[in-house]
Amino acid sequence: MKFTVDQIAGLIHGTVDGNGADIISDFSKIEEGKSGTISFLANPKYEAFLYDSKATAIIISEDQVLKKKPLATLIRVANPYLSFTVLLQKYQEMIASNETGIQQPSFIDPSATLGENLYVGTFSSINRNAKIGSGTRILNNVSIGANVEIGENCVIYPGAIIYSDSKIGNHCIIHANAVIGSDGFGFAPQPDGTFTSIPQLGNVLIEDYVSIGANTTIDRATMGSTKIGQGSKIDNLVQIAHNVEIGKNTAIAAQVGVSGSTKIGDHCLIGGQVGVAGHISIASNTIVTAQSGVTKTVKTPGQTLGGTPASPNVDYLKRNALIRQLPDLFEKINQAMKVE
Amino acid sequence: MKFTVDQIAGLIHGTVDGNGADIISDFSKIEEGKSGTISFLANPKYEAFLYDSKATAIIISEDQVLKKKPLATLIRVANPYLSFTVLLQKYQEMIASNETGIQQPSFIDPSATLGENLYVGTFSSINRNAKIGSGTRILNNVSIGANVEIGENCVIYPGAIIYSDSKIGNHCIIHANAVIGSDGFGFAPQPDGTFTSIPQLGNVLIEDYVSIGANTTIDRATMGSTKIGQGSKIDNLVQIAHNVEIGKNTAIAAQVGVSGSTKIGDHCLIGGQVGVAGHISIASNTIVTAQSGVTKTVKTPGQTLGGTPASPNVDYLKRNALIRQLPDLFEKINQAMKVE
Amino acid sequence: MKFTVDQIAGLIHGTVDGNGADIISDFSKIEEGKSGTISFLANPKYEAFLYDSKATAIIISEDQVLKKKPLATLIRVANPYLSFTVLLQKYQEMIASNETGIQQPSFIDPSATLGENLYVGTFSSINRNAKIGSGTRILNNVSIGANVEIGENCVIYPGAIIYSDSKIGNHCIIHANAVIGSDGFGFAPQPDGTFTSIPQLGNVLIEDYVSIGANTTIDRATMGSTKIGQGSKIDNLVQIAHNVEIGKNTAIAAQVGVSGSTKIGDHCLIGGQVGVAGHISIASNTIVTAQSGVTKTVKTPGQTLGGTPASPNVDYLKRNALIRQLPDLFEKINQAMKVE
Repeated sequence: MKFTVDQIAGLIHGTVDGNGADIISDFSKIEEGKSGTISFLANPKYEAFLYDSKATAIIISEDQVLKKKPLATLIRVANPYLSFTVLLQKYQEMIASNETGIQQPSFIDPSATLGENLYVGTFSSINRNAKIGSGTRILNNVSIGANVEIGENCVIYPGAIIYSDSKIGNHCIIHANAVIGSDGFGFAPQPDGTFTSIPQLGNVLIEDYVSIGANTTIDRATMGSTKIGQGSKIDNLVQIAHNVEIGKNTAIAAQVGVSGSTKIGDHCLIGGQVGVAGHISIASNTIVTAQSGVTKTVKTPGQTLGGTPASPNVDYLKRNALIRQLPDLFEKINQAMKVE
Repeated sequence: MKFTVDQIAGLIHGTVDGNGADIISDFSKIEEGKSGTISFLANPKYEAFLYDSKATAIIISEDQVLKKKPLATLIRVANPYLSFTVLLQKYQEMIASNETGIQQPSFIDPSATLGENLYVGTFSSINRNAKIGSGTRILNNVSIGANVEIGENCVIYPGAIIYSDSKIGNHCIIHANAVIGSDGFGFAPQPDGTFTSIPQLGNVLIEDYVSIGANTTIDRATMGSTKIGQGSKIDNLVQIAHNVEIGKNTAIAAQVGVSGSTKIGDHCLIGGQVGVAGHISIASNTIVTAQSGVTKTVKTPGQTLGGTPASPNVDYLKRNALIRQLPDLFEKINQAMKVE
Repeated sequence: MKFTVDQIAGLIHGTVDGNGADIISDFSKIEEGKSGTISFLANPKYEAFLYDSKATAIIISEDQVLKKKPLATLIRVANPYLSFTVLLQKYQEMIASNETGIQQPSFIDPSATLGENLYVGTFSSINRNAKIGSGTRILNNVSIGANVEIGENCVIYPGAIIYSDSKIGNHCIIHANAVIGSDGFGFAPQPDGTFTSIPQLGNVLIEDYVSIGANTTIDRATMGSTKIGQGSKIDNLVQIAHNVEIGKNTAIAAQVGVSGSTKIGDHCLIGGQVGVAGHISIASNTIVTAQSGVTKTVKTPGQTLGGTPASPNVDYLKRNALIRQLPDLFEKINQAMKVE
């Protein structure tokens, strides 16, 4: 890209303080600013970098008081982080591939239904009766199973595997090597100690605007559907077991595991490596801190939980503080016992 | 499918209470019963749904006492859950693809040995000297390395990677994007701080009736074999390190990690996100609760372990209960100390 | 292979004690020694196996004192483990595939730049403007995105996905189904409770001699680069988030998760299933024990840390010991209170 500071300021409705004719060709973090880049200051912790940053332009708050004159040209806006994000998005749209067409070799079963302006990359397969909506991009080495439905304007990154019968809405992103619709882990122990497989006949249902991370696995339901609600975002290497239901606009960080038949509400934030037991539910607006283990139903919405078994995080932190005082406590008690 | 209730009752040796001519075309959970579906009641917790379920038929125990007349036609059997599972299995067999043949494009090295009634999906490769048994289904984008042997009636789901020299028995299922036989994590630190790779020259040996979950990784042995015993079931995103040996009919839930050279016995149940240290062994019939960390050899079979480092679960639960009492204890002691 | 003991002793500069004409055709662990194999004794714990091992030859220390005469021919060297590793490496080089050439079908964009003596496996794609160095082997079903650069003598195992713009140095190994350069998990919550994606415009930069495990995910930076330093080794199923920087010669075991923008120094050892919070740094030469959670910046290099939140491991172990004494403590106190 090549824009003037004035052009960029116009895009984000900012006012320029400095040389509006400066040329911007890339983005940078304020602490790594280089000539020709634009950066931003949102977190006051980084104010020290404002004055000496070598970025050509910096987006700052219209309220920012300057301690001295920065080297960079400034663009003042109401919300610098938001404006910077808007800029990144506009740039991303500009550079996004709008290549369409079916690359060869690829395999599309004659019974599949394809929308318009699709892209299908090399070595991808679209199997029996699958339906792919318009504007969706399926990159290399993707496998779309029988009867799968994918909506419009989705991106399915290389190596993603969508098992048969999965339904994916519009504007979804499935990252590389994610697996959607694999069999739930259902085995019935037999009297002789072996396991019998319980057939997993349901599917996975993913609503609009969902993002699924790389190498994440979402198992199909035994019966019915494993569901991911509209707008929810799931990071890499997450395990979502059979019959789980995730609400809307819930964010789940990397390496979380959610066990079978559990329901998680809307607007929850689940930290990395959290484990959630099966057959429970978590109320909306719950925050679970990283590495915690949620073992029981959480009925009250809006709590922040921590530890294993998870409890209100303030209690968990307090207990942790007391555990750190145990050496003192033991000594105190041992001395007191001696005295007596 | 389309069956009458009488036909289904015949299949599972049940007795009909209601209209045996009703048509069943799908399965449902009792709490989500819909017209035309068959459901079951096994867990007494769900009895409340029995009476008003909109399922057309419900399989219940021959001993079930009714508080009022359910809407659905009933099929009474000795073990409702087992009968329902049998029904699911029969249905699954009915709908299972029995398509055979080598789809094109795929790559089969001329030196490979193939059984009868194979299915090989598009964009899959079967490399030098590999042997694939009769009735095995290899789906899309699978990579079978040199000298791999896979037995009869296995299913290898899309994107699974089987490294060279791996041996897989009969009736095994390998889910999508699982990796079998990758190099063990063996690096010898050198005096200059760099690492030298220790060649991983062994393989992976998987016995009959094993199931491996999506995105699970099983490393090859340094020498000899990493082994998964007959009938064991491994869930998604599990890490099995080099030279590990898992016994027979052991179930390992999602995101478990087993470190190098550890041996786990038969009939163990390892909960989700458990970590097991290297070079130890776990006796048969051990249960390890979710998120625990097993750090030492477990000699006594049949225990239930919890926590990190794992100990008998009752002790772990007791300690957890006492930790929750720490705030009270500290206050009590502080007051007592003051009094003195 | 088929070598005499004398030939092997020559390779590792050892002296033979026994029949130098014995034929060696495989490797074994000392406790599983078989006729025709060579083994080694490094760990004194295994000395009991030395005397009765059925291995044809055993490499032992030149200082090893014998309690009786072993069955095997001995090769005495200064460092048996190192010598055995050298032998494994030489054998690995001998058997390593040196097949070169572009297998068909595969896809190489005309704008890609390829070095000499490449191997490209079936169903792999090398997309626009990618550059692949000489001697690099790209196996089956690999996807190399636009503008990717991979150096010389790398091995990219089947199913690995390298997103656009990633840069990989020389002598790197990327194991099967690893994902390099997927989007960072960046979502800005909006007033209406939905998330807006923050474009991830940076890349991943992997230096020379790095090894990445199977199904591991390394996210691209929001801006700038997620970096893996020279010689670092990353195991399977590890999550490295956006803008993370890992130093040189650091080893990260399976299922570790490192959150966004965190920096880990050189020569660190991070145990399995460890979680590291975002926006912190860990000093060089830090050891973090398995399953720990590092929540704060670690400034002092050379510490061993354990627990969640991680603290010096000796303190963690001490607290664990005290927690195990809590039942006694509570009883003691309850009795003391009664007495009073």
